[in-house]
Amino acid sequence: MADSVGASLHTRLTRRFDLTTPLALAPMAMGSGGALAAAWAKAGALGLVGGGYGELDWTAREYTLAADALAGDAAATHRLGCGFISWRLEQDASAFDWLLDQPARPAAVMLSFGDPTPWVRRLRDRGIAALCQIQSVAQLQQAVDAGADGIVAQGGEAGGHGARTDGARGTFTLVPELADRLAAVAPETLLLAAGGIADGRGLAAALVLGADGALIGSRAWVTTESLASTGAKAQAVATGGDETARSGIFDILRRKNWPADYGFRAIRNAMHRQWEGREADLRADPEPAIALFEAGVKSADFDRANVTVGEATGLINDVPNSAALVTRMTAEAAALLP
Amino acid sequence: MADSVGASLHTRLTRRFDLTTPLALAPMAMGSGGALAAAWAKAGALGLVGGGYGELDWTAREYTLAADALAGDAAATHRLGCGFISWRLEQDASAFDWLLDQPARPAAVMLSFGDPTPWVRRLRDRGIAALCQIQSVAQLQQAVDAGADGIVAQGGEAGGHGARTDGARGTFTLVPELADRLAAVAPETLLLAAGGIADGRGLAAALVLGADGALIGSRAWVTTESLASTGAKAQAVATGGDETARSGIFDILRRKNWPADYGFRAIRNAMHRQWEGREADLRADPEPAIALFEAGVKSADFDRANVTVGEATGLINDVPNSAALVTRMTAEAAALLP
Ligand SMILES: Cc1cc2nc3c(=O)[nH]c(=O)nc-3n(C[C@H](O)[C@H](O)[C@H](O)COP(=O)(O)O)c2cc1C
Ligand SMILES: Cc1cc2nc3c(=O)[nH]c(=O)nc-3n(C[C@H](O)[C@H](O)[C@H](O)COP(=O)(O)O)c2cc1C
Repeated sequence: MADSVGASLHTRLTRRFDLTTPLALAPMAMGSGGALAAAWAKAGALGLVGGGYGELDWTAREYTLAADALAGDAAATHRLGCGFISWRLEQDASAFDWLLDQPARPAAVMLSFGDPTPWVRRLRDRGIAALCQIQSVAQLQQAVDAGADGIVAQGGEAGGHGARTDGARGTFTLVPELADRLAAVAPETLLLAAGGIADGRGLAAALVLGADGALIGSRAWVTTESLASTGAKAQAVATGGDETARSGIFDILRRKNWPADYGFRAIRNAMHRQWEGREADLRADPEPAIALFEAGVKSADFDRANVTVGEATGLINDVPNSAALVTRMTAEAAALLP
Repeated sequence: MADSVGASLHTRLTRRFDLTTPLALAPMAMGSGGALAAAWAKAGALGLVGGGYGELDWTAREYTLAADALAGDAAATHRLGCGFISWRLEQDASAFDWLLDQPARPAAVMLSFGDPTPWVRRLRDRGIAALCQIQSVAQLQQAVDAGADGIVAQGGEAGGHGARTDGARGTFTLVPELADRLAAVAPETLLLAAGGIADGRGLAAALVLGADGALIGSRAWVTTESLASTGAKAQAVATGGDETARSGIFDILRRKNWPADYGFRAIRNAMHRQWEGREADLRADPEPAIALFEAGVKSADFDRANVTVGEATGLINDVPNSAALVTRMTAEAAALLP
């Protein structure tokens, strides 16, 4: 619960990570590079680099870029972290290994999509906070048993990957139900809300629903510092919240081999519509479609290329810099809360 | 936006209908009978009888029961209303016709699932407020053009029927996006949030997201005055929010001929699981399954019979009476807001 001080909001999350606002940048693969993560840390939020698929080169470059950008600003340096995809770490943990040996120690590492247990253990051994992103109440116990310092409750509204199963939850009910469970089984564990939060109303709602803070993906993807292309950002600004869908289509087109339990939410463009309900066909003979998709990516044709935002895209109407965005969201939320 | 007065919450909704709390009882077919609607109206909320499938006998009996229970309490009488399913009214409007001629005039009539235009027109001719429940931003203009006094934004978390299409929205993003659109095109039109709201946290979140109030289904279904069976209520109390699903399965089993755009959310019991992904088979040869289902209903076997609650079931832990519930939700929300 929030105790607001002027135009800033203080919660257990801000106190734990010395933040000036209860916001965290989602570690978006290929989106949350060093510049974006550093901008969020400087703005007073937790800034998580998108380690994503665990490629060492990309992660080392972007994390180093962020650490260098923050050098000399001790407070902001202590707000820098990174995120990884657990099932992918099982195949390649080189970026995770690299990160744990850095002198610029991450404040937190977030783990999503798979069993976090071995990774949380290694983080705890080094005294690094572990945040585990989950999509259902059923996944809570594993994360708590692993020793998570914080849980990120991700509702189905979210951009990028999320639960695809029949029990997929919305942010509105998942957050308070997890807050109740945590109060019973692990009251010290932090809770962040993720999925659909793009302005101060969403941040305030996350806090009153019982979260200690909010993790922001889509909204942060559409900022000046994000690595998304200018055209993709413009497409997100122009698109309403009805026009996204979750499926496996773009994973097939991007040659990403995701477990069947997860689907990818992005703008429901012509390419997506063409394959809806026909994923098995696409998987059986993907190459012609992949060629069209890749040409679309190259030519910035967003009828074919993916624009990776969730339902929050209907609340995204500009491309601000991160400092302005974080200030705006925080002030809006503070005005709505006691 | 709410301006709170002590432990009560006042918004445009409470002022419009002379309520003491910004809550409305969802007009749940076979659930929101006269006793439940009267209890909510007495508790200071808008009480909508579940006209549902438009059966004249049922609706006339339950509406009359509520009106009689409220006779002598003018304030509460003016909080009584009814809801109908628009596509069903096209087949049988006898209950709607009956209602418009009642001396105990409804304060509001809610229309869901289909084109509300002709019904809103007839309500406006009589000076009765029309509330239109929608599931997407795309549906907004039709309701506004029809002349709706209020919009109910229903997220996919909701129990009972809701959007089944790929663009199905969550409450968390649908409410603020509709609030923004209404501010631009019809600023006088009220906005209620529906789907997943079961306690004061949810009510407070609905208000900070931009709604003028909240419409409550599942949570109200599990109260002493609801027409749901005792066993079904107990099953809802015992079930977590991960354990519901939306599909057409129970509609087939209940011989309800719903348009394909809508699905029915209920507890995902053994009967449901058995037919998941096989709706076409069930539709092709339904009678054996219907016989098993009907036997389950008769014997209160909730592995077979439907228990109609949404994701909010994970927040439902008791079977209070409506007065206690409304008081509790209101006080909890007021404590969270300025
Ligand atoms: C472009 C994009 C890429 C993402 N990549 C990752 C990722 O690599 N790892 C991860 O844990 N989550 C990823 N996510 C999900 C976020 O962690 C978060 O759950 C989500 O963005 C929250 O919903 P929102 O997009 O509505 O803010 C991604 C989200 C987006 C929009
Ligand atoms: C048992 C049950 C029956 C319902 N029947 C109707 C109905 O007849 N007409 C209607 O407009 N909505 C109906 N609904 C949907 C509600 O109007 C409302 O959108 C929903 O209950 C809100 O979500 P919640 O269940 O999480 O509170 C029903 C919901 C439930 C739980």
